[in-house]
Amino acid sequence: MLPYETIIRLDKGLKLPIYKQIAFSIIAAIQDGVLKSGTHLPGSRELAKMLNVHRKTVIAAYDELQSQDWIVVVPRKHVSVSDRIPILKPQKWNGQAVLNSYENDFLYPIKSVQKNVEICEGKRVPDLVIDDGRPDVRLSPIDQLLKMYRSNTSRNQSIRNAHVGTDQGTLRLRESLANYLYETRGLQISASNLLITHGAQMSIYLASKLVLDSRSNIIVAKPNYPIANSTFKEANATVLEVSVDDYGIDTDAIEILCREKKITAVYVIPHHHYPTTVTLSVERRIKLLALSKQYSFTIIEDDYDYDYHYASSPYLPLASSNHNGSVIYIGSFSKMLDPSLRIGFMVAPSNFIAQAVSLRRLIDVGGDGYMQNALATLIVDGELKRHLKKAKKTYHQRRDFLDTLLKEKLSDYISYRLPSGGMTIWIKLLPQYSICNLIQSSSLEILRIDEEQNAFRFGFASMNEKELEDAVSSLKSAIEKMSDK
Amino acid sequence: MLPYETIIRLDKGLKLPIYKQIAFSIIAAIQDGVLKSGTHLPGSRELAKMLNVHRKTVIAAYDELQSQDWIVVVPRKHVSVSDRIPILKPQKWNGQAVLNSYENDFLYPIKSVQKNVEICEGKRVPDLVIDDGRPDVRLSPIDQLLKMYRSNTSRNQSIRNAHVGTDQGTLRLRESLANYLYETRGLQISASNLLITHGAQMSIYLASKLVLDSRSNIIVAKPNYPIANSTFKEANATVLEVSVDDYGIDTDAIEILCREKKITAVYVIPHHHYPTTVTLSVERRIKLLALSKQYSFTIIEDDYDYDYHYASSPYLPLASSNHNGSVIYIGSFSKMLDPSLRIGFMVAPSNFIAQAVSLRRLIDVGGDGYMQNALATLIVDGELKRHLKKAKKTYHQRRDFLDTLLKEKLSDYISYRLPSGGMTIWIKLLPQYSICNLIQSSSLEILRIDEEQNAFRFGFASMNEKELEDAVSSLKSAIEKMSDK
Repeated sequence: MLPYETIIRLDKGLKLPIYKQIAFSIIAAIQDGVLKSGTHLPGSRELAKMLNVHRKTVIAAYDELQSQDWIVVVPRKHVSVSDRIPILKPQKWNGQAVLNSYENDFLYPIKSVQKNVEICEGKRVPDLVIDDGRPDVRLSPIDQLLKMYRSNTSRNQSIRNAHVGTDQGTLRLRESLANYLYETRGLQISASNLLITHGAQMSIYLASKLVLDSRSNIIVAKPNYPIANSTFKEANATVLEVSVDDYGIDTDAIEILCREKKITAVYVIPHHHYPTTVTLSVERRIKLLALSKQYSFTIIEDDYDYDYHYASSPYLPLASSNHNGSVIYIGSFSKMLDPSLRIGFMVAPSNFIAQAVSLRRLIDVGGDGYMQNALATLIVDGELKRHLKKAKKTYHQRRDFLDTLLKEKLSDYISYRLPSGGMTIWIKLLPQYSICNLIQSSSLEILRIDEEQNAFRFGFASMNEKELEDAVSSLKSAIEKMSDK
Repeated sequence: MLPYETIIRLDKGLKLPIYKQIAFSIIAAIQDGVLKSGTHLPGSRELAKMLNVHRKTVIAAYDELQSQDWIVVVPRKHVSVSDRIPILKPQKWNGQAVLNSYENDFLYPIKSVQKNVEICEGKRVPDLVIDDGRPDVRLSPIDQLLKMYRSNTSRNQSIRNAHVGTDQGTLRLRESLANYLYETRGLQISASNLLITHGAQMSIYLASKLVLDSRSNIIVAKPNYPIANSTFKEANATVLEVSVDDYGIDTDAIEILCREKKITAVYVIPHHHYPTTVTLSVERRIKLLALSKQYSFTIIEDDYDYDYHYASSPYLPLASSNHNGSVIYIGSFSKMLDPSLRIGFMVAPSNFIAQAVSLRRLIDVGGDGYMQNALATLIVDGELKRHLKKAKKTYHQRRDFLDTLLKEKLSDYISYRLPSGGMTIWIKLLPQYSICNLIQSSSLEILRIDEEQNAFRFGFASMNEKELEDAVSSLKSAIEKMSDK
C-alpha cells in the first residue's frame, strides 16, 4: 500500500474544499508517475479512514477524478488509475514544487535594462515619497470618467462598439483626439494618423522597433530618460549621446555627428526634458527640423509634458511643422489625468501607423474600448480642457510655492533652475553633499536620482502646499543630519 | 509685402481662438522658411485690417509669439521675426500638410501579420455580429469593479500604493491571484511567480521574446490561434505545425518532430483549443509533460478559457504538475469579466518572471494600479468566484440552447461537435456550401472564419436566447439564399 497520507496532503485552513485537495493530490501523483496506470486506489471507506475525512468527501473526489478520466470506478469492485494513461518512469514526488528556476535557455538577451528607479543600497520604509513628476490624481475628473465608462458598459450598442478597432484605438477617441490635438498643438491630422497605446512608453517601443535595427544610430540627450535608452538598445541600435544645456539638446553636436555617420533617428523631449526639465529653444527646434531634412533622419518627439507650460503657451510641437512625415510624435494622458490611466498616443504618417498597428496587435491585441470612449466623451464635452486649465493653474502655484520654500530653506545646499513648465524641479546638490548619502540618511524616498549629476527630480505637482512644506522640511533635516557626520 | 491673407488662414468655424490661429500660422511660416529672421511683420493695426479681425486679436497673437521668442516687438517701432532663428532655405509652403507617408526606411520587417479578423472581400454594415467567443458583459460585476476603482482613487494611501510595482503588477493583486490560482487550478505559486500583463497576448509576446530566436523551432497546432503564430514568427522562430483532432494537439506527431530536430517550445491551448474548441485529453497531457522533460522544451500553456468547462471540473493545468519550471502558464481576465478589461497574467519560475518584467518595462512601463487593486478586492471578496459560477451556469445553458437550435434549423447545412466547455461552437459548413459565399451574402458579420476549414466560430456566450434565435435565423436565411443561387 502506497503512503496515501503522504501523497494526499490536506490543509483544513485552506479555502479549497477538501474533496478538491484530495483530487488535486491524486492528479499530481498520477502526473508525476507515483500512481501508475492500473494502480488500484483504496476504496472510499478505507481512504476516508486513512485521511480522517467523511466518506462522502472521498466519493466526491473520486467522482471528480472519474469525470476527468483520471480514474476508472467499477462500482462495488475497485477504483483504479485509468489505463489510458501512458506509463511513465517514476520520479521523486515533490508535493511542494516551488517555481524558482526556469531551466531551459533564455534566448533573449536583456540588454542593460536599467532599473526603473535607481535606488542606492540600504533603504528603509519611507515616510514620504518624492515622485519624479506625477499629476495630483485628487484633482482629476475620475468620477466623470468612470461615469462615462459605466454608461458605456450598460448599453448594448456601446458594448458592441467598444470592441471595434481597439488595436488602433476606437474611432471615437481618435476622431476627438485629432480635433483636440489640432486645437491645442496645431497638428493637422486625421484619425488615420493616430494610434492609441497603453502609454508613452508603448509608443516609444513601437517606434523604436519600426525605425531601428542593429545598423542604426540614434542620438539622445545625456542625461536622458533611461527607459528610452534601454528601449533603443533593446532594438539593437547604437545610442549616441550629446549634451543638453539650458536650451535643450545640443543641435550643433547633432550636426557634427550627422557629418560623421549615418544617423537614423534623434529622440527629443522638447518640453521639460527628462530629467533636467529644460525646454528646447525655438532656434534649436528649427535647426533640428532642418537637419532632419538634410540628413533624412527620423525625429521621435516625446512631448509627454506639453500641457503644463507656465511661462507662455507651450511651443508648438516639431510635428506641427511641415516635415514630410519624418516626425513621430508621442503623447500620453497619464500626465494629464492619472498615471494609472494607461492611455497614450502616437501621431505619425498613416503608413507608419498601419505598420505600428500590425506590431501592436502582437503585443496586446488592443486597449480598453470603454475607457477610450469615456475619454473621448471627456474631450468632446470640454471636460479635459477645463481640467487641464485648472490643473495648470494649481501646478503653476505649486511650482512657485516650492521655489519659495527651496530658496528659504535649502539655498545653502542646492542649486536649481526654475523650469518654465512641467511637474518637476531638477535639483542639484552642492558638491560637498552626496545624493547617495542623502537618500541613505533620510526617511524620504526619492523616486528619481542621478548619481552622476548628484541630482534628483522633485515632483511638485502631486503635493499640496502642506505636503510640499513637509517634504522640504524632511529634506532639510536629512541634509543637516548628513552634514553633522 | 508678403501675402499675409494667404499665409494666415482663419476659420471662424473652428473652436481654436482666432488669435491662436494667427500665431500658429505665423509659426508655421517661420518654421517653413517663408518668414525669415529679421523679416518685419505688419503692425497690429495693419494686419487686423488685412485679416478683418479686431486689433486686440492681433495684439494677443503677437504677445503669444513674443512670449515664445518667435518674434521681437519694439513698441511703437516694429515687429520682426527673431534674429535668433537660423536662416533657412525657403521652401514651398503647404498649410495643409497631410501625413500620409513616412519616407525614411522601415527597418523593421513586419512578418506575415495576419489580420485580426480575416474577412473575405465585399462586406456591408452588419445587422448582427457573431463574435469568436466573448463573455456577456451584461452579466459581469462591472459596478462593483468601478466602485472599488473609485474608492482607490479617493484615498491618499491608495493613490500612493496604486503606483508601486505595476510593472510586475501590484502586490495585492499578485497575492490574491496566487491564492485564487491555487484554489481553482492547483497551482502552487507565490506572488513572485506572477506577472500581470495587459492580457493573454502580451504574455504570449513576452514569453515568445524570452524563449525564441532565429535558431528556435516552436510546435503549434494546425489550425492555431493566428496571432500566436504571427508572434512566434515575429520573434524569428520557425513555426512547425502538427494536426489537432478531437483529443487536442497530436502528441505522437510532436514526439516524431522531437526526434528529428531540436524543439525549443510547444504552444498549446489545452482547454477549448482555438479555433476548434477541443479539450486536450488526459493521456496527451501526460505525454506532453513527459516529452517536455525528455527533450527539454518549454511548454507555453495558453489556458485563456479554463473557467468555463461544463462536462466536469476543468482539467488541472499542465503548469500544476511537477514540471521543473518548464511550463509558462498564461491566463486572462478578459474572458472572465470583459474583453475590455485589459488584465491578464503569466505564471512562471521567478527568474523567468524577473526577465519578463525587465522586458515589459520597455513595452509599457506598467498597468493600471487602481484597476488591479479593484480586481484584487473582487477576488478576495469572493465576488469573482460568485460571478464565474453564475456565468458558467448561464453559458452552459446558452451552449445547450444553441445546440438545440442548430439541430433544429441548420442540420442540413453544417456539422459540429459540441464542445465540453468554452464560449464557442466551431461550426463546419458541409462541403457544398462555401463560408466565403456565406459571409458575402449575409448581413451577418462573423468575426472568425477559417476558409481552409470552411468553418467559423460561433460565440454563444455573449448572446441571450432571443439573440441566439435571431442569429441562427439570420444564418439559416443566408444559407438558403446562397443555395437558391
